[in-house]
Amino acid sequence: MEQIHAYRTHTCAALRAANIGQTARLSGWVHAKRDHGGLLFIDLRDHYGITQCVFPAGSTCFAAAEAVRVESVITVTGEVVARAEGTQNPKLPTGEIELRVAEMTVEGHADVLPMQVAGNEHYPDELRLKYRFLDLRREQVHKNIMLRAGVISSFRRRMIEAGFMEFQTPILSASSPEGARDFLVPARNHPGKFYALPQAPQQFKQLLMVAGFDRYFQIAPCFRDEASRADRSPGEFYQLDFEMSFATQEDVFNTIEPVLHGVFAEFANGRDVGTPPFVRIPYDESMLKYGSDKPDLRNPIIISDVTEAFRSSSFGLFAKIIDGGGIVRAIPAPGAGGNPRSFFDKLNEWARNEGAGGLGYITFNEAGALGPIAKNLAAERVERIREICGLKAGDAVFFAAGKPDAAAKFAGTVRTRLGNDLGLIKEGEFKFCWIVDFPMYEYDEELKQVVFSHNPFSMPQGGLEALETQNPLTIKAFQYDIVCNGIELSSGAIRNHRPDVMLKAFEIAGYGPEEVEARFGGMLNAFRYGAPPHGGAAPGIDRIVMLLADEPNIREVIAFPLNQQGEDLMMGAPAPVPGARLKELSLAIALPPKVVKS
Amino acid sequence: MEQIHAYRTHTCAALRAANIGQTARLSGWVHAKRDHGGLLFIDLRDHYGITQCVFPAGSTCFAAAEAVRVESVITVTGEVVARAEGTQNPKLPTGEIELRVAEMTVEGHADVLPMQVAGNEHYPDELRLKYRFLDLRREQVHKNIMLRAGVISSFRRRMIEAGFMEFQTPILSASSPEGARDFLVPARNHPGKFYALPQAPQQFKQLLMVAGFDRYFQIAPCFRDEASRADRSPGEFYQLDFEMSFATQEDVFNTIEPVLHGVFAEFANGRDVGTPPFVRIPYDESMLKYGSDKPDLRNPIIISDVTEAFRSSSFGLFAKIIDGGGIVRAIPAPGAGGNPRSFFDKLNEWARNEGAGGLGYITFNEAGALGPIAKNLAAERVERIREICGLKAGDAVFFAAGKPDAAAKFAGTVRTRLGNDLGLIKEGEFKFCWIVDFPMYEYDEELKQVVFSHNPFSMPQGGLEALETQNPLTIKAFQYDIVCNGIELSSGAIRNHRPDVMLKAFEIAGYGPEEVEARFGGMLNAFRYGAPPHGGAAPGIDRIVMLLADEPNIREVIAFPLNQQGEDLMMGAPAPVPGARLKELSLAIALPPKVVKS
Repeated sequence: MEQIHAYRTHTCAALRAANIGQTARLSGWVHAKRDHGGLLFIDLRDHYGITQCVFPAGSTCFAAAEAVRVESVITVTGEVVARAEGTQNPKLPTGEIELRVAEMTVEGHADVLPMQVAGNEHYPDELRLKYRFLDLRREQVHKNIMLRAGVISSFRRRMIEAGFMEFQTPILSASSPEGARDFLVPARNHPGKFYALPQAPQQFKQLLMVAGFDRYFQIAPCFRDEASRADRSPGEFYQLDFEMSFATQEDVFNTIEPVLHGVFAEFANGRDVGTPPFVRIPYDESMLKYGSDKPDLRNPIIISDVTEAFRSSSFGLFAKIIDGGGIVRAIPAPGAGGNPRSFFDKLNEWARNEGAGGLGYITFNEAGALGPIAKNLAAERVERIREICGLKAGDAVFFAAGKPDAAAKFAGTVRTRLGNDLGLIKEGEFKFCWIVDFPMYEYDEELKQVVFSHNPFSMPQGGLEALETQNPLTIKAFQYDIVCNGIELSSGAIRNHRPDVMLKAFEIAGYGPEEVEARFGGMLNAFRYGAPPHGGAAPGIDRIVMLLADEPNIREVIAFPLNQQGEDLMMGAPAPVPGARLKELSLAIALPPKVVKS
Repeated sequence: MEQIHAYRTHTCAALRAANIGQTARLSGWVHAKRDHGGLLFIDLRDHYGITQCVFPAGSTCFAAAEAVRVESVITVTGEVVARAEGTQNPKLPTGEIELRVAEMTVEGHADVLPMQVAGNEHYPDELRLKYRFLDLRREQVHKNIMLRAGVISSFRRRMIEAGFMEFQTPILSASSPEGARDFLVPARNHPGKFYALPQAPQQFKQLLMVAGFDRYFQIAPCFRDEASRADRSPGEFYQLDFEMSFATQEDVFNTIEPVLHGVFAEFANGRDVGTPPFVRIPYDESMLKYGSDKPDLRNPIIISDVTEAFRSSSFGLFAKIIDGGGIVRAIPAPGAGGNPRSFFDKLNEWARNEGAGGLGYITFNEAGALGPIAKNLAAERVERIREICGLKAGDAVFFAAGKPDAAAKFAGTVRTRLGNDLGLIKEGEFKFCWIVDFPMYEYDEELKQVVFSHNPFSMPQGGLEALETQNPLTIKAFQYDIVCNGIELSSGAIRNHRPDVMLKAFEIAGYGPEEVEARFGGMLNAFRYGAPPHGGAAPGIDRIVMLLADEPNIREVIAFPLNQQGEDLMMGAPAPVPGARLKELSLAIALPPKVVKS
């Protein structure tokens, strides 16, 4: 036994029948203990797996094994033996053998546990986060965090293979124009001044392009001081931030699709990930067919416009809406025609709760069309609707009517609801699409002003000429989103790299040149010294891991997340700081008269 | 020419003689322009290389090419032609060909430049940082940043191959006990409370070990609010942070040595990187032989203790020092014996400026020993010194005498100075060593108290028994540094994972259990639920890239560094923030009566 490693000759996943007869040493956590009369069994667990260890009664370490609590860390040494006939465990890679322990050392005692590691008991979030070091030992969380590490590592490998290099951009930085709230960091040597943590490395990655680096990426920590949501951590999150020079929109798509698809395929674990290229859907088409710019393409329902079928019709409610500039969208519900009246009533009530006037419908059976709307509408109009929507006997169709934007969006909500209620959404697959041709501008009814629809820094399609000659509301941007299963993984754009085009684009949205220079002068200035055309995107890592792990909450895929209140209960953050530190920072606490936690 | 890519068919490094006759399109920056009478040449540069483009006089784009300023971004299309006989450039991969331009588009105009990109002109740091996007285009900086990306990518690949997984630890975190000053982040929803940016993910990586992840690493951003130095950025820096469970000190060494050595070998570019294992030098031996715990092993000088040769000798100055508990160290200076008196006088004066009493010496020639000390010392004592130091005719030896610590360190300073002055330091090689067996404690003369020498969280050698039975000043820690060419790349340790050992270790240094619980309760608490033995280190990425790039200043290897005052001159950080933001954060600026920038 001399020369044997102090802690282990094998991991807890390594021993096999071939090792029978050998002396082995293992270290790990006491996952479970079972007392079978004269024998004590310990399932010893480490990062890699579990090995059954057996302590015969009367052996020198039997008492020690009996005394040790679960989750203690022990080192055991002994002979690898075959398990008794009938006690092999085919589910465990080490299930053919066990370790007959001759020596045992306790490396780290465990107190009585506040939560169990073995098993799948449900514990409150706060308890799990306070004892995250225990929670992380549990099988599912452990697997999630390993999945995350695997996904990120795979992204890196694939990006490097695609000719990208990873650069670190500053974390102590300047406030950025992304729009969300920055976290601030007081600068001790500059009283009254603050750094900001980056909401995204947007400006720096564009500067890297201006600096002549051709293809940049970074698994980039980003920070937004925003309220938490199930899919958003209240503090930091990670993006696969990338940017490429001399690239068209199609270049960006063709470059990142195999990376994204490759990662999903690698970790899909049997789920269908389709094949690239991902379908490209213009924004207008997406709003029409799916009532959303984040369509879940697993849902087979396709919305149609049926405004013309209702225009000046005898169904007065819709005809009036249409006369007032409104539209009607039809949401087919395949196979839903045979449902009882209560089904439709329930949906109608739900629609009212969602703020709609109601949810009109037509059902079709072998005899024809049924329901209140069908009764009030000329047969040829009903038939036109049936044709447009491709409906057959046994189907139903619902209608969303109203102002164009609102009706389109509500149709999307109905589509999602029907997809779920009718069990139409195919589980176990990932369906990707690009949403393209976002409008550059929209009309803000309140401001009575043309405003940017999305990102003011995207290149308008048609460039300066379009800005100078087209109705702004018809101009599209080289801006795109990548969507998977109804979840936006990333937006991205071909950037506006020309100062003249940028000044014109802002002018249309009501910003004078002075204001643009004052707010975005840093980037503008850089663009004045030779800027290449460039574009990119920044898929959210946390969301991708959530999708792959099939976890609904982002905290399940982050090793040490803050809780919903932005607190780290384990480490005690945030925390008060000594007055001397504040003085050094030229700061004073100015509590509001009554402290209200929001 | 239809279907040709909008910006490029090739990069500026791609075209060869084999492409002659083809139509090619290139995009890049106008690196240089040369007007040769009827021909205009533009060296077009992109990330990958340079291609010569030629615009014949009278061609449609000649005027445009003449007008375009250097560093503008252009797209050119034309025929690849062979360069005229005698004008090939063998130094350029594209040197056999040129592009005869038929079409040219300006993608991004360049204003008159504040600094040149081509050439190696020296510009003030502030100008370079303000126009970093131009500075980064310059060959050396561009290469440095690519080297950095390559080094980090290589580290990642090697760590993953060694079985490590990369996990992200929180950046919005709690104040850590590392000792340096934290950056603070006000928590909007918790008035009066602050997050801290991590000085290192030390506690989180240990928690990951407690959580059962076996091998962690991270290219980890770290933050210290400290003054800048040539080798330290005033804000953030990156570490190859790693930790492993069930590992002895030798395991850590054997794991990380091939990674470090591999990276250095990959980027050494002809420099000698030796072969692992790296030499292990106990701290005491390093202080004796090199007068430093960061020895530059390229320097062949080895210091010896010659206290006994001077004890009770006729050289009264040293004899008296020794009687008072002092020591004498001999620093041999091979080949320096023949130098004129002025050489020794200059060193003596330098030593006085360094705070030493002077720098005594003996020189040796064929006839024997010379100099004031030799004159005043018995011949057999001089001979003993000669033997101890292995000196021969033509050599000299210098002496550092004084209190043990001070004399040892000063001897190290002399060693470095002599190594440089005598040209003994071999350039073009990387010499690594581990410094091991650091003392756990030292005696603080001012506090009259035993204190921790280095990291209080390292495991003492001998564990609890050593703490309970040994003189604390004789206890070594499982703590180690990795040093390359006299630069500390990292310290590391086998951690103290046992609450009982930790409480005892702190007790010896004068901390009661309540204080330890109050200050380090988070970690202690985690260790009470089954902690594995573990250890690691965290080599500094920036320093490694500095070594490999042979750059003396850390700003040369960071894409967007802050200046020495911690400012980003390009983005304007730090900056004042609107009063409303401060109010939201429950903060007020409390400027000192007179603002003094430190």
